Amino acid sequence: MEPVLSRDPRTGEVRAEVGVEADTAAVDAAVRAAYATLDLLADRAKRSALLRAAADGVEARAAELIAAADAETALGVPRLTGELARVAYQFRFFADIVDTGAFLGVVVDEPDPAAVPPRPALRRWKVPIGVVAVFAASNFPFAFSVTGGDTASALAAGCPVVVKAHPDHPQTSELAAATIRAAAEQVGLPANVLVLVHGYQAGVDLVQHPLIAAVGFTGSIPGGRALFDLAAARPNPIPFYGELGSLNPVLVTEQAAETRPDEIAAGLVASYTLGQGQFCTKPGLVLVPAGPVGDALTKTAKETAATAAPGALLDGRMREHFLAGFAARAAAPGVRTLAAAAAAPTDDAPQAVRAGLLEVDAVDLSSELLEECFGPVTVLVRYRDAADAEAVLTRLGGNLTATLHAESGEPGAAAWLARLSRFAGRVIFGGWPTGVAVAPAMTHGGPYPATTSPTTSVGGTAIERWLRPVTYQTVPPELLPEELQR
Amino acid sequence: MEPVLSRDPRTGEVRAEVGVEADTAAVDAAVRAAYATLDLLADRAKRSALLRAAADGVEARAAELIAAADAETALGVPRLTGELARVAYQFRFFADIVDTGAFLGVVVDEPDPAAVPPRPALRRWKVPIGVVAVFAASNFPFAFSVTGGDTASALAAGCPVVVKAHPDHPQTSELAAATIRAAAEQVGLPANVLVLVHGYQAGVDLVQHPLIAAVGFTGSIPGGRALFDLAAARPNPIPFYGELGSLNPVLVTEQAAETRPDEIAAGLVASYTLGQGQFCTKPGLVLVPAGPVGDALTKTAKETAATAAPGALLDGRMREHFLAGFAARAAAPGVRTLAAAAAAPTDDAPQAVRAGLLEVDAVDLSSELLEECFGPVTVLVRYRDAADAEAVLTRLGGNLTATLHAESGEPGAAAWLARLSRFAGRVIFGGWPTGVAVAPAMTHGGPYPATTSPTTSVGGTAIERWLRPVTYQTVPPELLPEELQR
Repeated sequence: MEPVLSRDPRTGEVRAEVGVEADTAAVDAAVRAAYATLDLLADRAKRSALLRAAADGVEARAAELIAAADAETALGVPRLTGELARVAYQFRFFADIVDTGAFLGVVVDEPDPAAVPPRPALRRWKVPIGVVAVFAASNFPFAFSVTGGDTASALAAGCPVVVKAHPDHPQTSELAAATIRAAAEQVGLPANVLVLVHGYQAGVDLVQHPLIAAVGFTGSIPGGRALFDLAAARPNPIPFYGELGSLNPVLVTEQAAETRPDEIAAGLVASYTLGQGQFCTKPGLVLVPAGPVGDALTKTAKETAATAAPGALLDGRMREHFLAGFAARAAAPGVRTLAAAAAAPTDDAPQAVRAGLLEVDAVDLSSELLEECFGPVTVLVRYRDAADAEAVLTRLGGNLTATLHAESGEPGAAAWLARLSRFAGRVIFGGWPTGVAVAPAMTHGGPYPATTSPTTSVGGTAIERWLRPVTYQTVPPELLPEELQR
Repeated sequence: MEPVLSRDPRTGEVRAEVGVEADTAAVDAAVRAAYATLDLLADRAKRSALLRAAADGVEARAAELIAAADAETALGVPRLTGELARVAYQFRFFADIVDTGAFLGVVVDEPDPAAVPPRPALRRWKVPIGVVAVFAASNFPFAFSVTGGDTASALAAGCPVVVKAHPDHPQTSELAAATIRAAAEQVGLPANVLVLVHGYQAGVDLVQHPLIAAVGFTGSIPGGRALFDLAAARPNPIPFYGELGSLNPVLVTEQAAETRPDEIAAGLVASYTLGQGQFCTKPGLVLVPAGPVGDALTKTAKETAATAAPGALLDGRMREHFLAGFAARAAAPGVRTLAAAAAAPTDDAPQAVRAGLLEVDAVDLSSELLEECFGPVTVLVRYRDAADAEAVLTRLGGNLTATLHAESGEPGAAAWLARLSRFAGRVIFGGWPTGVAVAPAMTHGGPYPATTSPTTSVGGTAIERWLRPVTYQTVPPELLPEELQR
């Protein structure tokens, strides 16, 4: 069995060996162990207690978790401290949702003999879909990994979870899994409500396991699509809730570019270089007016990008992809390099890179610039008029977000917002897409390839992914689950 | 281009030529024509007016529609009259849903700077997913076809519809489409909110068309799975909401078999022979106690089945499949034939068949008896004890329904209900699964192969399939759609 290695992305060195990859038998054992806890998770009071204990647990072990995550991801202690606070908040947020029970979707129909056809007594609610496989993401070792939104929402729904760890942070994953498993035991549930597995093949086996009822995935388009295809090709296909990739376009109107060039430029650079550009909501394409109207914004963006601090990416493969991806885009026809992404070794991080910034006229925009490039780079697309901008928007696939910078009272702003909502799950006015609030009204999803289904993986309604409806017909109330006995 | 033929299933003869099959160009034109109406359907008041006008329209043309459907399906005027009344009821049911707007799922979050991360102002609702392809079913020429639940719920959601007609009732489909298209024009919408196409290849082209955003399908497992696979294999996979097949098991407890043998037997035979057994909710497997406790029920069922009136099936291919399917099951090891399905020509219907009834001991139950056999046949499975019954349930896939016949106050009834809800979307106590009420609390769906997604195709929440969430972040309320301006 292959060893699981923890690496330091700042240096590229192996720093520890963390267990072994799960073979097919180990994956089967993991899924069966999780499945055995399904009935026990039906107790909603225990589920909310588990989620609150998990929140307490990650806070109690914060120092250890953050140190491991920083060593494995180079994301830095301040960012990881914030991410872990988000995780604790999210566990408690879903605990409250479990307590209210609104997600059960209870509907009671009294009999109506006059209906066509006659209506019998019906009572409907939603039940847990079964064991959920969760694929951890590289770029959020806490918030989209073992302790992430998929895990929290699945447990909230009453589904045991088998997490496939991301190879970029196996040690963090082990610590995080141990924390949740301990929380389960604290509240009288089996530790196996969450089971962790490592290894590429383990992920493939997981998606194909007969007892896996749904999959949550956050990652790349190729990886996510391959797993989506496996889920769809099963003898019994299962829902695959994947968040794959997004360009997150930004449209700056002429009025906005003229009125707030420096503010917008500074906000843009801060957003696309945040976390070294390793956010699924990074703004990757920015429509800026052509000519003098947009030149001030462009100039400030160029100057600000040059001052961005270099940093290490999550792993060596990403670093290579980023540098090669930048070079290919910079070499595309009509592209002007405003800041050159490049290796920028520091004493602390020999593997560090610096941010890039590209510019191209809308008419010259080639298809490769419409593909997400993970890492600190964005493309300013200079457009001459609304038709020019519309021609670019028409070429976009689905997106997690789309952002409009317009001035208040500007005619046409509502139309642009409506246009952007055609292909995005979240439409932002005057802000930036990085930073996804854990909130009842959040949508983190969008038409493919943003996500593989019209759902959200962040926010209150994320729980809906792990439920299926069941209706009881003419069942005497005393034989029904308590929630339906009314 | 291939002609579309209308046939009389009672005689097997061609009765009319109804247009031509759509080639790839015609499908493309149909989808584009429907897509062009998407923005106009955003007007909710017009949508509910359209649905009410459609209800009025089918009522006004009832005689013509029912005559065509009876000639093409042999389902009989009484049944088709009821089915059309259901359709009118369903259009008005969804019109009310459109007016209330609860399905929009509006959630408003006020900003909360203390949240982790800070929460900006968020307003979430759901928007129409795009043009929906609807595949009509053979067995419900009105209620699961052009005028069916998928069409009604998709239009209610604001999605234009392209319907692929079922070859068993092309003339009925043309009349039905003309009725809805006229209703659209009556309320000031374009007729193209619904476009009809014919032909097998047209269906294949439809599922692969770039502007189709989701598919609704009701039909067989092989046909539905082939289309599901095409939808999943698209460059941008789209949701495929298919209702494919279901065995609809019934469990009769010892107490129930002892207490109400004749009532249960009569109810069962009426249910499985209703509409010549051509319901997706037909009870196809009935667990009856072994030995004397279950013998009375079995005897009455045998006697009642012998008196069931012969009738024509929906088409010649179904007739062949039914007779061959019955013969294969009757020849399986341990199977006893209580009533032999067979050709039973009448003056009115030379192609008529009579119902069959099979019996087998649970221990002898072979896999082919666990496959749905479309048409008037069911299998009594005699079980010795709870473990014997459980062993059968364990072998079942997902089902639309599961039914329990137990006596009130019988210990264990609640446990059986919980057990049945594990694999079914609707659990019935003391009744029969045929007959699906159009009601807020209805679930017509279940784990695969019952449906391809954890949703319902009948009832109030069927509308959820055609929506996707969009969240507006920090957008000034005056720039938002009216429903979000609060």
